Amino acid sequence: MTRQEDTFHGPAAPPPRLPRLPRLTQARAPLTHAVEVLNERGERESLPIPAERPLTVYVDRREIVTLMTLGAHPEWLVLGYLRNQRLVDSVDEIESITVDWDVNAAAVATRGGIARIEERTARKVVTTGCGQGSVFGGLMDEVHHISLGPARLAQGELYGLVNAIRLQESTYKSAGSVHGCALFQGAQMLVFVEDVGRHNAVDTIAGWMWMQPGGPLPGGDKVFYTTGRLTSEMVIKSAQMGVPIVVSRSGMTQMGHEVARQLGLCAIGRATNRRFVCYSGAERIVWQPELAAPEPVRPAE
Amino acid sequence: MTRQEDTFHGPAAPPPRLPRLPRLTQARAPLTHAVEVLNERGERESLPIPAERPLTVYVDRREIVTLMTLGAHPEWLVLGYLRNQRLVDSVDEIESITVDWDVNAAAVATRGGIARIEERTARKVVTTGCGQGSVFGGLMDEVHHISLGPARLAQGELYGLVNAIRLQESTYKSAGSVHGCALFQGAQMLVFVEDVGRHNAVDTIAGWMWMQPGGPLPGGDKVFYTTGRLTSEMVIKSAQMGVPIVVSRSGMTQMGHEVARQLGLCAIGRATNRRFVCYSGAERIVWQPELAAPEPVRPAE
Repeated sequence: MTRQEDTFHGPAAPPPRLPRLPRLTQARAPLTHAVEVLNERGERESLPIPAERPLTVYVDRREIVTLMTLGAHPEWLVLGYLRNQRLVDSVDEIESITVDWDVNAAAVATRGGIARIEERTARKVVTTGCGQGSVFGGLMDEVHHISLGPARLAQGELYGLVNAIRLQESTYKSAGSVHGCALFQGAQMLVFVEDVGRHNAVDTIAGWMWMQPGGPLPGGDKVFYTTGRLTSEMVIKSAQMGVPIVVSRSGMTQMGHEVARQLGLCAIGRATNRRFVCYSGAERIVWQPELAAPEPVRPAE
Repeated sequence: MTRQEDTFHGPAAPPPRLPRLPRLTQARAPLTHAVEVLNERGERESLPIPAERPLTVYVDRREIVTLMTLGAHPEWLVLGYLRNQRLVDSVDEIESITVDWDVNAAAVATRGGIARIEERTARKVVTTGCGQGSVFGGLMDEVHHISLGPARLAQGELYGLVNAIRLQESTYKSAGSVHGCALFQGAQMLVFVEDVGRHNAVDTIAGWMWMQPGGPLPGGDKVFYTTGRLTSEMVIKSAQMGVPIVVSRSGMTQMGHEVARQLGLCAIGRATNRRFVCYSGAERIVWQPELAAPEPVRPAE
């Protein structure tokens, strides 16, 4: 990043009160699974496919939701889900998260009981994902009040970021059919997460940000990368995490575009190799057009 | 299809009772929207992006859900959503669906009142999509009892189907960032639907199947195509529609694979050009390996 946003941890600010972090298990399960397939010539092949397993989340023994997940970081996923659904306001509220793949369950213990969560889930938690069922409802009102910091990203850093994703070892490379996302500071990758759904992947990053020993990681000077499309829900989730720059390999939808513009969020799509388009917030990019890919030859219509 | 499944409409069966079809509006709204972007050389371009708009569904004035949709066929989407969420059992139950894009609302009027819907939504409708929140919960039990007909698909028909998709005019071609799906009989495309989410797209097809004047279209002799991955939820939705063969441009997840195997559903993935892999139900394919693409040159590891 060429300009640090230091609202949260500048020298003048008082030292942040360190949160009590929840105890997390580190449940592990295989991320890929080899299946026997037939190819178009009728030949048998062994092909790795990504795992997909149900994880039922219980908060203080009350069932909240069943998530279908790859299972790479189930504890962060659960924490980030509770955060992004705004069922908890602070990581302090969680005492522990215990994932047991033998029963496909995540048991969340809170410090203060579930009174507030009960009230919030009563408000018809319509879960998110692929535009069906949506956190959109009351959420846009809250997002309106988010003030994103002044962070900028240099074009060269953007290219470095895209290249880091390209080089990253991944379940996608070995088995396909998963979405990836990552949090960057400039071109430096802080964390990379994959899941069967892009919503799970971003929630997992939100959980990881809350689990930092120095206190919740501020998003104001970060860049959020996703392989998925920039729909309204993705833009809103990035804004919820305080991250003002989103980068995607894919494109953008109209509502995502409108939300990004309203928030002053920089949305970059179709980012591959040294190509990209900036849909909004172009003032956050430090342009270095001399680094751009040569102009593509347009195919005749 | 090389073999007809005639469980539903064979000559020996009594003529089906024609359902009373609901009255539907035909609400229309632009499917793409041009935005000004900057490319990597800092040049302004006008780029079409797909629309994405909220549609809040009210059943007898009771709010059920907000769907984020492209808006191509909102009435079929709402009908198929109610069907696939099993909030209604028969198209007869719906009197009318009135979509008004001025207020982004779909008003569903039932013939018999919402008593049953109230009871069913109380059962925590955790909506589906991208694996987050899931219809998986109680659904798998019901899917177990589904008996899919003996339909088969010839390899040449599969290639014809994939080619029909390739030739189809689409929002994807003009603006990207949407998923498409289609219902086929052999290589003949019956309906093609796009939406910002693949779940909306398949629900829209389910709604269309219910709206046929000759009665609900049986799925037993059909093929379901999706550009999206074959996750458990996609396989389950296909089975719910009675469609025993699914084809995807993308890959498959482990849970999708397990569900497909249990149901005897033929799952074909990575279907492009004359390539594909069959993950399950290979006995439903009439193999014609002489039509296959020449063996690909494998890149050195």
